[in-house]
Amino acid sequence: MDTPDRFHFCTRRTVEFADTDMAGIVYFTHFLRYAATAEQEWLRSLGVRFLATDGTLAGGWPRVEASCRYRAPARWQDELRVALRVREVRTCGFSYDFWIFGPGAPAGEALAEGFCAVAHVALDPATGQRQKTPLPEELRRRLLAPPDQPLPAV
Amino acid sequence: MDTPDRFHFCTRRTVEFADTDMAGIVYFTHFLRYAATAEQEWLRSLGVRFLATDGTLAGGWPRVEASCRYRAPARWQDELRVALRVREVRTCGFSYDFWIFGPGAPAGEALAEGFCAVAHVALDPATGQRQKTPLPEELRRRLLAPPDQPLPAV
Amino acid sequence: MDTPDRFHFCTRRTVEFADTDMAGIVYFTHFLRYAATAEQEWLRSLGVRFLATDGTLAGGWPRVEASCRYRAPARWQDELRVALRVREVRTCGFSYDFWIFGPGAPAGEALAEGFCAVAHVALDPATGQRQKTPLPEELRRRLLAPPDQPLPAV
Amino acid sequence: MDTPDRFHFCTRRTVEFADTDMAGIVYFTHFLRYAATAEQEWLRSLGVRFLATDGTLAGGWPRVEASCRYRAPARWQDELRVALRVREVRTCGFSYDFWIFGPGAPAGEALAEGFCAVAHVALDPATGQRQKTPLPEELRRRLLAPPDQPLPAV
Repeated sequence: MDTPDRFHFCTRRTVEFADTDMAGIVYFTHFLRYAATAEQEWLRSLGVRFLATDGTLAGGWPRVEASCRYRAPARWQDELRVALRVREVRTCGFSYDFWIFGPGAPAGEALAEGFCAVAHVALDPATGQRQKTPLPEELRRRLLAPPDQPLPAV
Repeated sequence: MDTPDRFHFCTRRTVEFADTDMAGIVYFTHFLRYAATAEQEWLRSLGVRFLATDGTLAGGWPRVEASCRYRAPARWQDELRVALRVREVRTCGFSYDFWIFGPGAPAGEALAEGFCAVAHVALDPATGQRQKTPLPEELRRRLLAPPDQPLPAV
Repeated sequence: MDTPDRFHFCTRRTVEFADTDMAGIVYFTHFLRYAATAEQEWLRSLGVRFLATDGTLAGGWPRVEASCRYRAPARWQDELRVALRVREVRTCGFSYDFWIFGPGAPAGEALAEGFCAVAHVALDPATGQRQKTPLPEELRRRLLAPPDQPLPAV
Repeated sequence: MDTPDRFHFCTRRTVEFADTDMAGIVYFTHFLRYAATAEQEWLRSLGVRFLATDGTLAGGWPRVEASCRYRAPARWQDELRVALRVREVRTCGFSYDFWIFGPGAPAGEALAEGFCAVAHVALDPATGQRQKTPLPEELRRRLLAPPDQPLPAV
């Protein structure tokens, strides 16, 4: 998977001490959390409302699949950049590739890269159950737009 | 706080790799999680039903206060023993002291010891809100019983 | 990926409250931690020594790749069974498939299934650096043995 | 403990989804992590160098004691403000009080407030062991300065 030069969304975060393990590096599962947190920030920026007026979840975006390839470790205090790019848009969900950049990898290369597929669910008022629900049309349109965000400078 | 020789509840757990940090030891907040997890195991053993029939929380035991004093570190693969003892029983809650024992401390001494106060809340069917609720009488009786569990052998 | 009926290693764990999120289910990254923890328990059972005599890491098993497909959620107090099976053994590492079973899926089906590839690294005394190192011959032999563990009963 | 109007350090953070639990609120131990992360950011701003040139820990600030009182919950997406204030400076460590502010509490009141005491340790080159070490004089001077930071506006 080559690193593209345009993404649908990019964000930054700094590695916290609590994310490290006794090998002195970020524990591997946190990369997937970093990607999922970026995804939520991105969806919010696209107008997705996650919370109902009472503060509970209005619907949800359960994971269908997640994967990550690890190239180089991240360490405490590293300033990371997380970049996402839509891979596929489906009726009731979508998938994206992600890249995590940091000082532990050569310029232009990612520490880690991965993939995540999520479903869109909403509460069915008739049954009180969450069930797969088509993406709102406006969101679908945004997800299908070509990626136009360059990776922010270090 | 001297270490007592009788407790209301004792349990074991093994330190996971993911609980360590780059200092090579268990990150400090996990000791409080170990105590809270022991507390839940203990309350279950006393008959507390946490979950409604639909799998959601029937009520709750929100933290009012938690504290811990750190004597010696815990490390990956350490076999820990967590011991709890009621300090005070109130109308709508209770508090307990806890001790965490492991190989990093001399025999009979705890790696860490702390305190936790919890409130008892339940859903008010009239309002749909969670609110402070008196402890069930049988639970109160059990919490007020003298501690009779010795620390299990290593 | 069909669920096999023999594995190289099976273990159990109970879902902790702290592993849940506000959707009421286990946060998705924890499944990968459950698999990695089972992997470490398995390697220990095969004689791998992770720690040097001073308690620091003797070498390491860094992640090369990890992935998970989510079929059904896990919930607090669920008794999970985690099963691993070698997929490929290489000179300096190996990969395995994993399955996580719990009450949220029909009998015989996994809540989640995934894949993990790990490298074997050891400290090079000459340079003080960790570098890729061939698997010990006895470990390689064990990893190449046919899987013979049935899934434990619920 | 009344909320003061001047602190030694204030910072912001946003609650991540992964920090919530099935009760729909931030799991209680994360408040202590939020305080410890703010502490590290503060010490860095005071010139403390945590890492040796090889990226390993130069010394450390192990916890001696930590506590927290919980007034109101924090929720996903809440914009929190974390404020610290020195309580006591000792030869080889110091303690501070902390307050966590967020939308779940009335203006001017904290969601949670707590206390943390840390020791200062450094590697003894003669023995290779970490041991208690006096605070650097410049750091001591800064810790003893009167708090002069107002809480940032929401």
